[in-house]
Amino acid sequence: MGVDPGSRCTGFGVIVMDGRTPQYVSSGVVKAEQGEAAPRLRTIFAGLQEVIQTYQPTEFAIEQVFVHHNPNSAIKLGQARGAAIAATFAHDLEIFEYSARQIKQSVVGYGNAAKEQVQTMVVSLLKLNAVPQADAADALACALCHSHNLR
Amino acid sequence: MGVDPGSRCTGFGVIVMDGRTPQYVSSGVVKAEQGEAAPRLRTIFAGLQEVIQTYQPTEFAIEQVFVHHNPNSAIKLGQARGAAIAATFAHDLEIFEYSARQIKQSVVGYGNAAKEQVQTMVVSLLKLNAVPQADAADALACALCHSHNLR
Repeated sequence: MGVDPGSRCTGFGVIVMDGRTPQYVSSGVVKAEQGEAAPRLRTIFAGLQEVIQTYQPTEFAIEQVFVHHNPNSAIKLGQARGAAIAATFAHDLEIFEYSARQIKQSVVGYGNAAKEQVQTMVVSLLKLNAVPQADAADALACALCHSHNLR
Repeated sequence: MGVDPGSRCTGFGVIVMDGRTPQYVSSGVVKAEQGEAAPRLRTIFAGLQEVIQTYQPTEFAIEQVFVHHNPNSAIKLGQARGAAIAATFAHDLEIFEYSARQIKQSVVGYGNAAKEQVQTMVVSLLKLNAVPQADAADALACALCHSHNLR
């Protein structure tokens, strides 16, 4: 399971390994309405717990976030990430963290790849018929990066 | 229950209202060892869940954080805050947020009060025999601010 955390939209993507070949299982976006922090974080926490309960992933790969120009956005993004990681604690999931650069390098072969290139590669690697929502594609890319890393 | 979130030390303080008089129940600090984000957040999450299970508070007051000069610290602090709030979700706790300014104004009567003044007032208001650790005192101050706000 890959996760791209965000204070408004948290993408998730579930893949399964068929030998060395990753196969698509599910993806989507948990949307937290605007407003106070606690109900937003509850939405992210409960949404990801539901995905975990449904698909029972064994590994959880989440995008690392480092630099942010706006400190208030950084706090909000950090909170979302904290709630997303906390959603795994009731389950026995191993947690892995990858930087955006590692994910792009792994999926596109180029650490500074554009968002659209990542999406195109996700569609191609998972043989999807449609392009997933941007945050879901990023989450699938994170899961794919982890699958490459396991080999 | 009041909480002062931090990426290394998360303070907590539990008080009970005896009519209009706040009484001390417990306080302390959850310390997260240095290292990767996930185990640190698990320590905060599990530590606060233990406090909640032990004292069964009905309300949870947490310090709001806004401005931070270092964006990486802001992300880490946000993560800790997200995990702290997520620790309440398995329980039926109402969540309240107060800014540092509101807490100081409420406990000391002056929004720009120094940390030491807050500690002195916490000791005085709760008739403590010893000064709690700094983060625990801030958490108790947050709980006291909420108790004042309820009146």
